[in-house]
Amino acid sequence: MYKEYEPLNLDNLPNRLSEINEIADRVGADPKTWIVNEVGDGNLNLVFIIKGPVGTIIVKQALPYVRLVGDSWPLTLDRAFFEYNALLRQDQRDPGIAPEVYYFDKEQGLIAMEYLAEHKILRQKLIAGEKVRGLASTIGKHCAKLAFKGSDLHMLTQDKKNDVALFQKNNELMAITENLVFTDPYFEAEMNQNTKGLEGIIKLLRDDVELKSKVQHMLKKFTSNAETMCHGDLHSGSIMCTPDKTRVIDPEFAFCGPMGFDLGMLIANYLMAFFSQPAHRSSSSDTETYQEWILNIIENTTKSFVDEFILLWKTERKGILYPESVFENQGHSSLAAMNDLLQEIWVDAVTVCGIEMHRRCLSLAHNADFEEINDLALKAKLEARNLIMGRELILKAHSLNGVEYILEMARDFNRKELI
Amino acid sequence: MYKEYEPLNLDNLPNRLSEINEIADRVGADPKTWIVNEVGDGNLNLVFIIKGPVGTIIVKQALPYVRLVGDSWPLTLDRAFFEYNALLRQDQRDPGIAPEVYYFDKEQGLIAMEYLAEHKILRQKLIAGEKVRGLASTIGKHCAKLAFKGSDLHMLTQDKKNDVALFQKNNELMAITENLVFTDPYFEAEMNQNTKGLEGIIKLLRDDVELKSKVQHMLKKFTSNAETMCHGDLHSGSIMCTPDKTRVIDPEFAFCGPMGFDLGMLIANYLMAFFSQPAHRSSSSDTETYQEWILNIIENTTKSFVDEFILLWKTERKGILYPESVFENQGHSSLAAMNDLLQEIWVDAVTVCGIEMHRRCLSLAHNADFEEINDLALKAKLEARNLIMGRELILKAHSLNGVEYILEMARDFNRKELI
Repeated sequence: MYKEYEPLNLDNLPNRLSEINEIADRVGADPKTWIVNEVGDGNLNLVFIIKGPVGTIIVKQALPYVRLVGDSWPLTLDRAFFEYNALLRQDQRDPGIAPEVYYFDKEQGLIAMEYLAEHKILRQKLIAGEKVRGLASTIGKHCAKLAFKGSDLHMLTQDKKNDVALFQKNNELMAITENLVFTDPYFEAEMNQNTKGLEGIIKLLRDDVELKSKVQHMLKKFTSNAETMCHGDLHSGSIMCTPDKTRVIDPEFAFCGPMGFDLGMLIANYLMAFFSQPAHRSSSSDTETYQEWILNIIENTTKSFVDEFILLWKTERKGILYPESVFENQGHSSLAAMNDLLQEIWVDAVTVCGIEMHRRCLSLAHNADFEEINDLALKAKLEARNLIMGRELILKAHSLNGVEYILEMARDFNRKELI
Repeated sequence: MYKEYEPLNLDNLPNRLSEINEIADRVGADPKTWIVNEVGDGNLNLVFIIKGPVGTIIVKQALPYVRLVGDSWPLTLDRAFFEYNALLRQDQRDPGIAPEVYYFDKEQGLIAMEYLAEHKILRQKLIAGEKVRGLASTIGKHCAKLAFKGSDLHMLTQDKKNDVALFQKNNELMAITENLVFTDPYFEAEMNQNTKGLEGIIKLLRDDVELKSKVQHMLKKFTSNAETMCHGDLHSGSIMCTPDKTRVIDPEFAFCGPMGFDLGMLIANYLMAFFSQPAHRSSSSDTETYQEWILNIIENTTKSFVDEFILLWKTERKGILYPESVFENQGHSSLAAMNDLLQEIWVDAVTVCGIEMHRRCLSLAHNADFEEINDLALKAKLEARNLIMGRELILKAHSLNGVEYILEMARDFNRKELI
C-alpha cells in the first residue's frame, strides 16, 4: 500500500490491495485472479466489489471531496476513521447487523469489509414493491440498542465521554447534516433543488416562523445533545436486505446526538417510500396493499424500538443515569421516569422525521423514491403531500403520543390534493 | 522546576518557582525576599500567595487526590489543565472577570495567576452581611456571556465541537458533580452527611419518585447536553469581591453542559445565604434587610443574564443555530424562538438550583453559610426550609415563569416551621 493517500482505481487496485494480508486472505493471493467492480455509493466515496477464488469483499475508500458535488467541495478522509469506529461500536452493541470489518487504513481512508452477496439496498426494494420479513423487528431493535447502549444509561460514563470526544471530531459530516438537513430547506440556499410546482408549498414552509423555530430547536439538540452514538444517516439507502435478512451499512455520519435521531430519519424515509408508491405500482390495489405494508413496517419498527428499550432499561441499566440505588433499591419503580424519557425520544424522532421529509425534496441530496418518478406533475403532487405532512409532524410532535397517529396522518395526506 | 510532579511546600517553593521567568518577573528575582503563605481552597488543591518586592501572585497546584477527603480518593492533575483552558475562555468571552494567567505547567498541575489583593470570598461577605455594588450585573452578564459565546449560537461550530471534545476529558470532575450533586443526596451514599433532625425531610425527598425522576432527567442534561462551556462550580465561594468589584475564580469543574447550569447553581447559593441569615445577623430587622438585599441580587442577576443574552442574540448571533438566513433575512423575527430558548434555560436553571440546595445539606461538601451555625437546632430548622424549597423548585420548574416566583417562594419558606 502506498504511504501517501492515493485513490484506488481499477488499474492500481489489484496490486495495491493484494499486498495486504487481511485482504489477500479473504479474496485470494494472486491479484490476476481478482474481478473488481466499482459500484459507487452515490454521494461521497469510492466503493469496489472485489471477487476472487477465496471470496468476495467490499473495499470503501474516502475521496478528498464530496463525490456528488466534485472537488469544488473538499472533504477530509477522516470520515473513514469515523465509519470504522462506528462499525466497531454497532457490532459490539448489536452483533451481526453492520458489515464485519476486515481491515482499516486511516491514511488511505480505506475500509475492507464483508460483502453482502444476497442483499439489496432497501430503497430499491421499496421502489420495486418487495417485502422483507423481519425488517421492522431487526431495525427497531438495532436503533434501540444503539440508543441505549451508547448512552449514560448503560456505558461507564468515562467511556461514553471518550466516545463523545471522538465523534465531535466528525465535524465535517455533522456540518453536512447541520446545513443540508436542518437549514438549507428553510431559505434559498445555493445548492437547493426542487420539483417545479412546489413553489407555493415552499413559500408556506418558509413563511412559518413557528415551524422554523422548532426546526432550529431540533438543530440545537442535534449539535448539542450528545446522548448516544447515532448511525447518523439511517435511511433506506443505508439498509440492505434479502427477503428475510436485514443489515445496516454506511455509518460514516456517526455522531453523538439525540437518542431518537436514527428512528426519526428512518421513519421519514419509509413515509417517502409510502407517498411515492402511486408512481411505482401498476394498480391502485397494489399501491394500497404495499402502502399498508410500509405503514406496518413503521408501526412495528417503533414498537420493536420501544420494547427493546424497555427490556434494556430493565436488564442493562448500568450507567450513571436513573441508577437502581435511587429507584429500585429503595423499593421505587423507575418505569414512569422511563416512559417520560421514551416520550422525549419520540418527540425528537417525530421532529427529525418531519425535517428529513423536507430536506429530501428541497435541499441537495434527494432520494430515488421521488427522483425516479418521470411524470413531474405526479412527482410534485406526491412530494407536496410529503412536505405538508412533514410540517404537521414538526408542529405537532408534542401531541402525537403514539405511532398510530403518524400512520393515520399518512393515510390522510395520501388522499389530499395539495397542488 | 522539577520534571516529575512534586507538590510545592513552603520549603521548596521559593527555589523552584524563582527559576520560572514568568513568575520571577511578577514577584522578584531573589526568592529570599519572598513571603509565601499557603491558604488552601478547601476541597481540592494547594494554593499559595507569594509576595515579593515586585508584586504578589497566586500559585495554585493540583494534588493527586481530593484534599477534602485525602489520598484515599485519588484524582489526576488534569483538572489544572481544564482550569487553565477555562480561564482563557472566560477571559476571552468576558475580559477582566477571571484572574489573569501568568504561567501554566501541565506536568506540575500548576497555574500562576493574578492575586486579587482587595478581594474577599463572596460567601464570607454574605455571612458577614456585607453588600457589594454591581455584583448582580457583573455576574449576570458573565453567566450570559459564557452561555452564549461558548455555544453554537456564536462560535464556529468546528471550534465549539473542539471545545466539547476537550472538556469531555474533564470526566473526573464531572463525575464528582454527577455523584455528589445529582445522585448521592437521593440515597444513602457512603459520604453523605446531614444535620441531626433532618431525617424526616430526607425521607420525604427520597420517597418522592417524581422528584428523583426530575433530578435524574437533569443529570441526563448535565452529562449529555453540551450546549456551552460552563464554569461548572459557580457558587459564592468561587466569587471574590471588594465593596464594588466582582471577580470569578476556580473554574476547574468547567464542562460543556446546559446554558442554565451556572445561573442555577449560583441562585441556589444565594438562597442558602438567604435562609441562613437568621443565624448570622443580630437583629430581625438586620436579618430582613439583608435577606431582601440577597433576593434583590438574585432578581437582578437573573435580569442581567436575560438582558445580556438578548443583547448578544441581537448582535453576536454568528453560529449555526437560528441563523439570520432563516429568520431576519426573510423578514421574520427570531425573538419568539429566543424567548422559548430563554424559557428552557430558565427551567434548567431552576431545576439545578433546587438540586444544589439539596446536595449542600445532604451530600459531602456542605457550605459555610449553614456549617458556621453552631446552634444545631436552628441550623436544622433553616436547612429544612432550604431543602423543601429545593424540592418545590425541582417539581415546579416548568411553571415558575419568572424570577419573581422564586423570590416570593423564598420569603414564604423563610416563615415556615418545617421541623
